[in-house]
Amino acid sequence: MIGINENYLKLRAGYLFPEIGRRVRAFKQAHPGAKVISMGIGDVTQPLAPTVVEAMHRAVDEMGRQETFRGYDDSGVGYEFLRQAIIDNDFGARGVALDLDEVFVSDGTKSDTGNMQEIFGIDNVVAVADPVYPVYVDTNVMAGRTGGEPDAQQPFSPGPPLRVEGILSSNRGQDARDTKEQGQGVPNAKYRVGEPQDALATSAGQFAGIVYMPATAENGFVPEPPDRPVDMIYLCFPNNPTGAVATKSDLAKWVEYARTNKAVIFFDAAYDAYIKDATLPHSIYEIEGAKDVAIEFRSCSKTAGFTGVRCAYSVVPKQLKAFTRDGRAVEVNPVWRRRHTTKFNGVSYISQRGAEAIYSPQGKKQVQQTIDLYMSNARLIRDRLTKLGYTVYGGLNAPYIWVRTPKGLGSWEFFDLLLSQANVVCTPGAGFGPAGEGYVRLTAFGLPQNVKEALDRLRKLEV
Amino acid sequence: MIGINENYLKLRAGYLFPEIGRRVRAFKQAHPGAKVISMGIGDVTQPLAPTVVEAMHRAVDEMGRQETFRGYDDSGVGYEFLRQAIIDNDFGARGVALDLDEVFVSDGTKSDTGNMQEIFGIDNVVAVADPVYPVYVDTNVMAGRTGGEPDAQQPFSPGPPLRVEGILSSNRGQDARDTKEQGQGVPNAKYRVGEPQDALATSAGQFAGIVYMPATAENGFVPEPPDRPVDMIYLCFPNNPTGAVATKSDLAKWVEYARTNKAVIFFDAAYDAYIKDATLPHSIYEIEGAKDVAIEFRSCSKTAGFTGVRCAYSVVPKQLKAFTRDGRAVEVNPVWRRRHTTKFNGVSYISQRGAEAIYSPQGKKQVQQTIDLYMSNARLIRDRLTKLGYTVYGGLNAPYIWVRTPKGLGSWEFFDLLLSQANVVCTPGAGFGPAGEGYVRLTAFGLPQNVKEALDRLRKLEV
Repeated sequence: MIGINENYLKLRAGYLFPEIGRRVRAFKQAHPGAKVISMGIGDVTQPLAPTVVEAMHRAVDEMGRQETFRGYDDSGVGYEFLRQAIIDNDFGARGVALDLDEVFVSDGTKSDTGNMQEIFGIDNVVAVADPVYPVYVDTNVMAGRTGGEPDAQQPFSPGPPLRVEGILSSNRGQDARDTKEQGQGVPNAKYRVGEPQDALATSAGQFAGIVYMPATAENGFVPEPPDRPVDMIYLCFPNNPTGAVATKSDLAKWVEYARTNKAVIFFDAAYDAYIKDATLPHSIYEIEGAKDVAIEFRSCSKTAGFTGVRCAYSVVPKQLKAFTRDGRAVEVNPVWRRRHTTKFNGVSYISQRGAEAIYSPQGKKQVQQTIDLYMSNARLIRDRLTKLGYTVYGGLNAPYIWVRTPKGLGSWEFFDLLLSQANVVCTPGAGFGPAGEGYVRLTAFGLPQNVKEALDRLRKLEV
Repeated sequence: MIGINENYLKLRAGYLFPEIGRRVRAFKQAHPGAKVISMGIGDVTQPLAPTVVEAMHRAVDEMGRQETFRGYDDSGVGYEFLRQAIIDNDFGARGVALDLDEVFVSDGTKSDTGNMQEIFGIDNVVAVADPVYPVYVDTNVMAGRTGGEPDAQQPFSPGPPLRVEGILSSNRGQDARDTKEQGQGVPNAKYRVGEPQDALATSAGQFAGIVYMPATAENGFVPEPPDRPVDMIYLCFPNNPTGAVATKSDLAKWVEYARTNKAVIFFDAAYDAYIKDATLPHSIYEIEGAKDVAIEFRSCSKTAGFTGVRCAYSVVPKQLKAFTRDGRAVEVNPVWRRRHTTKFNGVSYISQRGAEAIYSPQGKKQVQQTIDLYMSNARLIRDRLTKLGYTVYGGLNAPYIWVRTPKGLGSWEFFDLLLSQANVVCTPGAGFGPAGEGYVRLTAFGLPQNVKEALDRLRKLEV
């Protein structure tokens, strides 16, 4: 009899964004005339750079001619032209030397951060910040590295088979209606596996076995290494969702911790292009000794508007080691290579040529112009909200602004208020974890005129 | 201390093709004047259809303009325009009704067949044909659903840490040299995790816990359902590597078996476009009751030359169920949706527009012309080899021709002979499993003039 992976049943239905989408759709249906402006989901709005467009046209033409047609990317890990451009520009220019076979081109950092855990043992203890990008947690839950959410009503606790099917399938039965209110003014999730559109989940809970490291105003949203040994540490700087950045000395503490505890750091640098402060590190490999303990993830998504084009990469240094249960060292790079080439067949040649073009002199200039546009949005959001009396974080070296909700409102309460009064969509901080409660995330990715209009509307908000 | 996933250490280094590549490179180095023709790796050679090229140019232009730019594919499972085209053309036209949310667009069937196992329990018993597409097996080994290869010299049996590092890293130490000869004239692999270019693996072994179903000349290369209950069954028709096809009554037996044993069939139909016989099923859903027990995989790779463009899809029917350990039914579709949207961020918009164009009247015609070209290669290979006295299978409704080696030669012996005497590259059947020993796979994907020249050279072969 075919068994399901029961770890999936520990997860709640939603990713955060489907629930936001559901509320926005409901609002629009009730108010068809309203012009809703999204400052919520972290997707870009500016078109691709002209140089990237030209490069992709050339690549499409090549694919249409016998002499220049390309099939599989034989290496399975990305064309050398792209890996070399990455090494020279993202690392060499900052004094970090990498070998070609330490770079693995992929279709996205979501895929990479989600898949990388797979090559490590199931008994490793995972540490994440709270609030956190949900993919780090969910993929470890799926793998079985956690228990359930201790405070959650589990979907499969009691009841006959039909009940279980009812919950999973369509939200139409009694089970879908008996959701209980719980917690700090946040409707508590019914923990279940379901379709995104059925999601009842509104607040991220915490899973047994994961070490959550609160990122708070008190620690500048950069958590300290934990007081106990952990094995797999997810760090994201510039941070999603808080917009916080880590200094070299912040990262040095983490590298030291990982070296001492033989831990591995998963360093998500998907937003490095937004760093303006020249003293800040872009890569964790700028820290002495990091290659022994860190994997790094980068993406063209936010750097160059590739969310719909798909191209990213991960770096797995050859000197990084993990260990068998009986303590023997194993090089991680060939194990990841085996995973990557067995379960993945490379990125579109057209996308790879587009990504290469980002590194041309023209491409760099054009990409920077778009980033400058987004960052002028960020500045505007920060300035105007500050003037209105809000406490804001981030937005200086990151496209995310982390805003304290006024008058102690819950994240989702403020979300609803902002939507109904100003017709502006934000992302409730509680959706990223308990420590995100009392915050919302705004993004700088909007069209400038929309950002201005949204901020104008916020002036009239009655809290 | 960070633990490695020790299941990976059960795997040998190579995927089959890196080893072929290594031997071809060595031959070319020794014979720089030789014109080597590949009939080995299953990659396409013909350019994309003009309609596909036009569609992708339009999509690239859209991405370069503010008004038409697209970021994330919000559904996470493919644009509706593509899913609808798939449903109408690949299924509706054959009398199979599917809902939009039963189709999941992805970057490849390798990814899909590799990832799908993840949502099922670790205790399921896996059944595969022998010979088999190695991805089905390797991904289950990685997941921990198997033991090691019982006949294998395990890489981690004895020795100090340094020795393990030496094996994993670079093949430079003593360990790389002490490979032993074993088996039927086939150099036995040293089982280890390593870089593809270091691969010593030349023959697929068998992993404890997997049920291997021999596909032989006696059963027409279509195995019967096993005599014991299994849970996850991988079927591939038209078959890679044997080129065999399954009739409706063949598949009906499998559907019946799966229904009786509450098993799930992973049906890989990546080569369905090569079916010429109108009585043969293209989809397993043409069999009554299959939606309760089968997941289907399709790809644009071989249908329309998308190996470098990347677009495929899987079908997970809503009525398909799997079970918890205590016997409760769980719908599989929402669980796969959760996996797909959490660990994957969609396929390039440009690739999706290209895939959509395959289904236009023009696209269908152009794609068919390319398939006809490949199939005339297949016919030529079959005819000429038969005249030369070879026993050949497949190639009638599939791009693969499965050739019995002459005079009882081993697969790799014949590979070496073909390479050295005729400068022609084939794929040794033993690389797909023990039952592939004594066969080689030829593909019909070559340029017609190369195929003709290769066949001319074969006439002079001295075995």
